[in-house]
Amino acid sequence: MHHRSTPHHLAPAPAPAPAPVTVIVGGVAGGMSTATRLRRLDEDREILVLERSGAVSFANCGLPYHVSGVIPERAALELQDPARLAARFRIDARVRSEVVAIDRAARRVTVRPADGADYELGYDELVLSPGAAPRLPDRVAPDAPLHALRTLDDLDAVMVAVDGLPSGARAVVIGGGYIGVEMADNLHRRGLATTIVQRSSRLIGGLDPEMAAPLAEHVLERGLGLRFGNTVTAVEARRVVLDDGSVLPADLVIAAMGVVPESGLARAAGLEIGATGGIVVDDAHRTSDPAIYAIGDVAEKRDRVDGSARLVPLAGLANRHGRAVADAIAGRPSISASALGTAVIDVLSLTAASTGWSEEHARSRGIEVRVIHSHPLSHAGYFPGARPMSLKLVVDARTDRILGAQAVGTEGVARRIDVIATAMAADLAASALADLELAYAPQYGSAKDPVNMLGYIARNLADGEDATIQWHELDDAVADGAVLLDVRAAGQLAEGAIPGATWIPVEELRERADAYAGRRIVVHCRIGQGAHTAARLLASLGHDVVNLDGGYLTWRDGMRARAHEHAADATTADLRAA
Amino acid sequence: MHHRSTPHHLAPAPAPAPAPVTVIVGGVAGGMSTATRLRRLDEDREILVLERSGAVSFANCGLPYHVSGVIPERAALELQDPARLAARFRIDARVRSEVVAIDRAARRVTVRPADGADYELGYDELVLSPGAAPRLPDRVAPDAPLHALRTLDDLDAVMVAVDGLPSGARAVVIGGGYIGVEMADNLHRRGLATTIVQRSSRLIGGLDPEMAAPLAEHVLERGLGLRFGNTVTAVEARRVVLDDGSVLPADLVIAAMGVVPESGLARAAGLEIGATGGIVVDDAHRTSDPAIYAIGDVAEKRDRVDGSARLVPLAGLANRHGRAVADAIAGRPSISASALGTAVIDVLSLTAASTGWSEEHARSRGIEVRVIHSHPLSHAGYFPGARPMSLKLVVDARTDRILGAQAVGTEGVARRIDVIATAMAADLAASALADLELAYAPQYGSAKDPVNMLGYIARNLADGEDATIQWHELDDAVADGAVLLDVRAAGQLAEGAIPGATWIPVEELRERADAYAGRRIVVHCRIGQGAHTAARLLASLGHDVVNLDGGYLTWRDGMRARAHEHAADATTADLRAA
Repeated sequence: MHHRSTPHHLAPAPAPAPAPVTVIVGGVAGGMSTATRLRRLDEDREILVLERSGAVSFANCGLPYHVSGVIPERAALELQDPARLAARFRIDARVRSEVVAIDRAARRVTVRPADGADYELGYDELVLSPGAAPRLPDRVAPDAPLHALRTLDDLDAVMVAVDGLPSGARAVVIGGGYIGVEMADNLHRRGLATTIVQRSSRLIGGLDPEMAAPLAEHVLERGLGLRFGNTVTAVEARRVVLDDGSVLPADLVIAAMGVVPESGLARAAGLEIGATGGIVVDDAHRTSDPAIYAIGDVAEKRDRVDGSARLVPLAGLANRHGRAVADAIAGRPSISASALGTAVIDVLSLTAASTGWSEEHARSRGIEVRVIHSHPLSHAGYFPGARPMSLKLVVDARTDRILGAQAVGTEGVARRIDVIATAMAADLAASALADLELAYAPQYGSAKDPVNMLGYIARNLADGEDATIQWHELDDAVADGAVLLDVRAAGQLAEGAIPGATWIPVEELRERADAYAGRRIVVHCRIGQGAHTAARLLASLGHDVVNLDGGYLTWRDGMRARAHEHAADATTADLRAA
Repeated sequence: MHHRSTPHHLAPAPAPAPAPVTVIVGGVAGGMSTATRLRRLDEDREILVLERSGAVSFANCGLPYHVSGVIPERAALELQDPARLAARFRIDARVRSEVVAIDRAARRVTVRPADGADYELGYDELVLSPGAAPRLPDRVAPDAPLHALRTLDDLDAVMVAVDGLPSGARAVVIGGGYIGVEMADNLHRRGLATTIVQRSSRLIGGLDPEMAAPLAEHVLERGLGLRFGNTVTAVEARRVVLDDGSVLPADLVIAAMGVVPESGLARAAGLEIGATGGIVVDDAHRTSDPAIYAIGDVAEKRDRVDGSARLVPLAGLANRHGRAVADAIAGRPSISASALGTAVIDVLSLTAASTGWSEEHARSRGIEVRVIHSHPLSHAGYFPGARPMSLKLVVDARTDRILGAQAVGTEGVARRIDVIATAMAADLAASALADLELAYAPQYGSAKDPVNMLGYIARNLADGEDATIQWHELDDAVADGAVLLDVRAAGQLAEGAIPGATWIPVEELRERADAYAGRRIVVHCRIGQGAHTAARLLASLGHDVVNLDGGYLTWRDGMRARAHEHAADATTADLRAA
């Protein structure tokens, strides 16, 4: 009785009273979380899930990895199927079933099955979880080898296309965000000569430029192509045309230009749509119609930092909010977390992760920030296998509140971002990171964990014990008359140097500092720690001194970011030389 | 002037006024953190560090790994030396210098150098960071090959002993705590036939028995010997005698029976010593004499959960508190975090970590607890390389407060414990773990992270939506008339079964549950998740049902723990059969 296409309440028996009906539009992350949670809360309710594509509850985050064969079996991506959902949860899940209209007054939706006539379903509660659609280039020739990757159907099409290509065939990925980089990574593994075309001059938009720069360098080192500062104006049969008129040959083109909430159905039904294009919801995920909920990529989120509406297309939030909607429908208190937007990505074996706001975003909102860069090792340096990472913390200078964090490295990156995301969720101040008791043994971390160190630096800055300037503020400081002192150890100089810096090892600083009396001193070391000691010393000797935050390594990453900006119109070869 | 053995204030010049003097007893984790931080805060102060052993600031947590050659170079363990500390920080660090007396009235200590006559040093502030001494067996023959491993001197002695042994020689490690297991691991890697003698029936005391049981199984599988329930009564020339009269041949014996705070100096000086044997300190780490501070393994910590005094011999706390003492001496607000005791250990490539209280400890304190076991994968199951782990959360049932957590696995273990330790530091409730936004991509985690899942379960329990019993409560429930239903999938049965359970797959439960009307039902699956769905279904059908927390896997670990208890007097062979 749960599989027929017309549920019983449309032709009700006189008695008993029919069970309430929940209709869910979209059967992947958010929708399926609602459905299964709701069944656990309410054994009697009728639960219908309508999915436009050919599969429910598939592993959408895993799709790119089947292209390369990292996930060899397509079946591994199918997490559930309608038969199992029916047997285990008595959920009526229908694939190839698009909801094309909502009649809010009558509380009915119109369903368009791929292989039959439209029909109507009544609902007591409607949950919209249709997701977001990939943006596509404006001009696409009919025979262009253009694909997006959203569903298993899309994946099947990409696999057919890729299987037909010889090794060394050329792929172009339009977009260098999360999906674009993952797709490029996997096409590259598959043996395709792959180029990413990116509108901006950095990969992964949520990272600040100096944090993103090593990702671009890494991608280039691995042999991928990068076109920064370009957009695609047309996709043709075997080539892509860029806005600067240049042409890239392309046997396969992937559109990963971001996504647009699929809010058309909601808009047509008169539900309120935000300026973001997402459906406006309240804290219980209710739309402007209290019988209709919206979750996942189609719905706006409330930013954790300032409460503003934003789109955060992340699977974790879709799942969590799907569960919260089930609670709300079942009459339970529904706890709605606002969105930090914690995310992580593997970029050809380099890990980048972030949570909350970037420095750039915070400054664009007019917030006075304290910014901390560090370059710790993943575990104690004396234990073999320690790997470097770059960490960044963005702090509200007025309140010591953590606004966001970013990390790039090979090991222990997600762990540190998770700790900071947890601290942010709990409203711990930046200085409080110093006191966290984190798991330490020499193969797992440091007695002072990288997160503790961020807290110590934050506390020093808050106490006025240390003052720093950022890599992008150095030129102005020098122009204003500051002298730049390099206090690295002799063995560290081979890495390169900041032009104009005078080298004085910390050990000689007490004796030689007098020469700079009356001038502002900017002191730098390799990563900022030795320079902190030097800055303390110089301050105690009466000097006006600031520490170059993150040291030479952050400055170098910043210069790389600038080079990427300058090369944004240039070719891959130019970028590589940068 | 900073290297002479009699500082200037003992023979003061008429002017200028001498700088204040801080004397630090012990130059490893805590003491050295105080010294370097204090120099950064105060350029003028005289800072002396007196270290009894031959090295300051060595990597004590790394010592076991040099025995096996995992850390091949001894020099890697020497993080600082007196010459460098003098040049860089103007710290007067003196090795082989034991402080043998404190004259509190005169504010002087008596120093006994290994190669000279006693002398006195005056102080303005005295910092005691001498650490803790290894416990030793009562009866040790003069020619017994007994070693402890606390200092580089100890390490050198162990290396000489090990170098003189043929491969296959026999080692006995007395004690199965952190140090004992690490030593046994490294002696085993070195090729010695190694046996751990442990008083209790589990490795790593801070873990509950069912969490520790897999560690013992793992150690046995790797070929080490285990003697549970035994103590050592005598160490002789080539053998160890146990309390049950049995004898273990031993070419090398390591004492890892725990440590005793080295509070004798403080006690002799009349400072208050706690019931723990550690020096009593206030929140600013001050002893009963306000001019004397104590940090590290010699000092009591304040338990984060209930504020009680305890000993927590962890390097992270020693470093942090060393820094806090420097702040206090320099007149800065000194923030003293109480101690959760977060710890992690590698057990022959298995990772165990914990924070806060165990279930056992909480119950011993009379606290009504909710306990949650889970067996998640380290990342999304559909992405290759996902590894199982066991997680445990201990919650105060009255308040939903997190009391502690434990984890055992191969990947992602420290990360989850770090997140929970951060949540505890911020006083997040157990249910709030559900809403944390943690970094997710399929190779790094799950859209619902293992920590989120603990939060969901905690919330279900708090809301009364789910009720569970623990593995150690099952026998009583069945004795009281409950029926035990196994709702695993058919493919999961081969792993084993709980005796007396009736197998009904979830899909058949609706039809077959009537047979148990009127009886309490205990339902279990493999890890607890499918059984949760089953329990919800049965409850909605009117049954009195509880879920066996952690499912078959936790029950099996519990049975292993019981077998270890029963075999506690038995031989290694018996344990292996358990």
